[in-house]
Amino acid sequence: MKSLYQKSMSLTVLATSLLCVGAGAAPNDPATLGQIRDSAMKSDWAYERLADLTDLVGPRLSGSVGAAAAVEQVAAAMRKIGATVTLQPVKVPHWVRGAESAELVEYTGRPAGITQKVVLTALGGSGATPAAGLTAPVVIVRSFDELKAKAAQVKGSIVLFDVAFDQEMADRGHAGPAYGHGAGFRFAGPKVAADMGAAAALVRSVGGANYRIAHTGATGVVAENRIPAAAVTAEDAMLMSRLSARGLLKMHLTLTPQTLPDADSYNVIADLPGTDKADEVVIVSGHLDSWDLATGAHDDGTGVAGAMAVIDTLKKLNLKPRRTIRVIAWMNEENGTRGGKAYFDANQDKLDKHFAAIESDSGGGRPFGFIGSVTPPMVKYFAPLKTALEPIGAGIFERHDIAGAADTGPLERAGVPVFEPLVDSSFYFNYHHTPADTLDKVNPLELKRHVAVMTSLTWYLANMDENIGRVPPEQE
Amino acid sequence: MKSLYQKSMSLTVLATSLLCVGAGAAPNDPATLGQIRDSAMKSDWAYERLADLTDLVGPRLSGSVGAAAAVEQVAAAMRKIGATVTLQPVKVPHWVRGAESAELVEYTGRPAGITQKVVLTALGGSGATPAAGLTAPVVIVRSFDELKAKAAQVKGSIVLFDVAFDQEMADRGHAGPAYGHGAGFRFAGPKVAADMGAAAALVRSVGGANYRIAHTGATGVVAENRIPAAAVTAEDAMLMSRLSARGLLKMHLTLTPQTLPDADSYNVIADLPGTDKADEVVIVSGHLDSWDLATGAHDDGTGVAGAMAVIDTLKKLNLKPRRTIRVIAWMNEENGTRGGKAYFDANQDKLDKHFAAIESDSGGGRPFGFIGSVTPPMVKYFAPLKTALEPIGAGIFERHDIAGAADTGPLERAGVPVFEPLVDSSFYFNYHHTPADTLDKVNPLELKRHVAVMTSLTWYLANMDENIGRVPPEQE
Repeated sequence: MKSLYQKSMSLTVLATSLLCVGAGAAPNDPATLGQIRDSAMKSDWAYERLADLTDLVGPRLSGSVGAAAAVEQVAAAMRKIGATVTLQPVKVPHWVRGAESAELVEYTGRPAGITQKVVLTALGGSGATPAAGLTAPVVIVRSFDELKAKAAQVKGSIVLFDVAFDQEMADRGHAGPAYGHGAGFRFAGPKVAADMGAAAALVRSVGGANYRIAHTGATGVVAENRIPAAAVTAEDAMLMSRLSARGLLKMHLTLTPQTLPDADSYNVIADLPGTDKADEVVIVSGHLDSWDLATGAHDDGTGVAGAMAVIDTLKKLNLKPRRTIRVIAWMNEENGTRGGKAYFDANQDKLDKHFAAIESDSGGGRPFGFIGSVTPPMVKYFAPLKTALEPIGAGIFERHDIAGAADTGPLERAGVPVFEPLVDSSFYFNYHHTPADTLDKVNPLELKRHVAVMTSLTWYLANMDENIGRVPPEQE
Repeated sequence: MKSLYQKSMSLTVLATSLLCVGAGAAPNDPATLGQIRDSAMKSDWAYERLADLTDLVGPRLSGSVGAAAAVEQVAAAMRKIGATVTLQPVKVPHWVRGAESAELVEYTGRPAGITQKVVLTALGGSGATPAAGLTAPVVIVRSFDELKAKAAQVKGSIVLFDVAFDQEMADRGHAGPAYGHGAGFRFAGPKVAADMGAAAALVRSVGGANYRIAHTGATGVVAENRIPAAAVTAEDAMLMSRLSARGLLKMHLTLTPQTLPDADSYNVIADLPGTDKADEVVIVSGHLDSWDLATGAHDDGTGVAGAMAVIDTLKKLNLKPRRTIRVIAWMNEENGTRGGKAYFDANQDKLDKHFAAIESDSGGGRPFGFIGSVTPPMVKYFAPLKTALEPIGAGIFERHDIAGAADTGPLERAGVPVFEPLVDSSFYFNYHHTPADTLDKVNPLELKRHVAVMTSLTWYLANMDENIGRVPPEQE
């Protein structure tokens, strides 16, 4: 299959490349790739955009004034560097956090007059308690089987899913599966508890770090039975389990979030037009919305800033890709993925023109390379890219059957190969969805490496000769 | 000087020892010391008391219902194991936290409708803003010199002392000095700013850990000009500095704590009477009050539980000390040290009967030995104790001119030698004075080591022949 790659060095392609690059080299030759990498490693542009997004706009949950300001800011920044900007309308859920507090008001051994505060935060989509709160016994479970076994107690109670985040698994490099396990309880648990008649549902925060901070996130309660649902800190889950072991435990819980009508919002789409294959598209993206507790620096400010910087880096080098490079700042990844769905729906007739899609949404930890959902025979075509990224320690290509990023999920399921940076995410879930996901957690050097990977990968895909298209599962 | 130590093995002393211990051995012989150490390493009693204090009572700031419940609980636990319990009245400050919130409402580049939340917590002793808050420009300084240089701006402004905690210093084993540096700004800064006409004063949280948690603590504002004073998280201090660098910065600040009349409280004093030197006292102590944000597991639950367990350990072994062992759970270390002062005032005529005082208030990290303020020639008398503690890795005796613990400070300044466990406190200031100082942070094995050190040291001091008394500085 080497000959296929060699084809990109053919005279025909070289001639095209000369037109595009204007530098006498084929677009994916080592010199050009090295130039991109080195330029990215010298630029503060992405960090400046990230600082603008987090420091000036701050939190940007779908439907909020922050989300609207972020759309404006990113669109303006991309227009300023000469990209062609489109705002794609997206109707988004509009959930607004209210008061949130909880106290343990009854337990064995409680001295008169004492209540114990529980630190918690409502989950996105949570229903509300009465304004004065509700008081109910607490039932603690560690599995869905245990929940079912305790069905009689669950009715009218506050259920706590006390499932600890597996930090050791995260430390071994499997942060995603560790998160997935806990997030399963967070998303499904409150709905199941609601169906069983629970008055409210709590989950132990899904994430590492032991500083009594609550990790929010989306939950799956539905409009017909939208019970209050919140994440308690790991510390408070452990306290509740200890007190429950002493006897009866009752909680007073106040959560007053509101679910408002869907709001108008946008995907920000910024194109760098291609040359001879301009009708084909390579997407590079992150999601613009964040949770409301922090400024979403790692989730997913670094993804958005990294994607934005792809066009900046190429523009500064005056490099013109063969395919159109499309930066997308997705709206509503966190609680609906409406942006990804809207894009897919609007591009149903152009799916075969989507050569590949990159999405960065695992934080700004050190990148070691990239992940991609291509078939095994395709891997070899990425050798020059790996070589170009090796000097910054990012030369690993980890092939997956499914990359599994959220916003590009519909495209991937339709057969578009999806790529992601491969990053150290061992610490990511310490900050993810907490008040602590702030700019200071982002290492500027790692963000440069991130931009180098994102830009090199995008450029490489935009100029490849080989067809790396995946066969959609339903057509296999 | 070895002969002096050998004297403790003389027949006279041995005879006395036989009466006291009833086990055929001198009280400070290796077998007895080993028995104490091994017994402590097998007991869960201290951890159970710590769990009762933190899980059942919880926060216990001076004057609060929690502090009162803690007095009752500790007194009852000590009576239950047969100690002679006295409650010594102490009038304590009564400061109560109120609402606390802050937003950055004006800054260069702020999109319309956006404000940035600042996470902060009032400092103990802080004054209040109007209920609706106050709005003022922010002036950021990093030293008192810079504060003075900005005197004209300070008047009517909110001053932020943005001084970072030196975690590297803490990691090198100098957590105390690292804390002291920051705490100096926390205690003195708001008072100085108040004197210069500041509307309010903020300090960057004094402590490590980067999880956007605020560290409270006492500040020195006085009744005549009690301005609002709070600690902002490290993250928010950095945000404010970055935004201030872009231009004007204004904050809306709401803090509504109350300073109530002094309240009635108590030192809990529990004696294990001595035998032939019963009129002499060895104090072993921790402070019972905590800050209000958490359950004070490390600050100073481990100190109190460790001191309580001294009598439990000796009682279980049926060991009777020559000198009276006095466990004290001090009240009001955090914001007044009124308990330590009250004890000193009440014992002015018995100071010469205070052989030594132990205070544990550096958290429940791994103990490596003990600190003591004896004169250099006295160090050699502790060799058998060091030997006894070596098997659990706690055989270091670090001599200091001044041990410097808070509650025993008046005794130490009057010439009583003061001892403390020597512990790993590199992580202590991550949790200290934050909502995260909770039971789960205490390693049960380290607490056993802690009890082994506290009990061995107390026993050893209670039975020594040598006079280790310090000369009070004013008599030197």
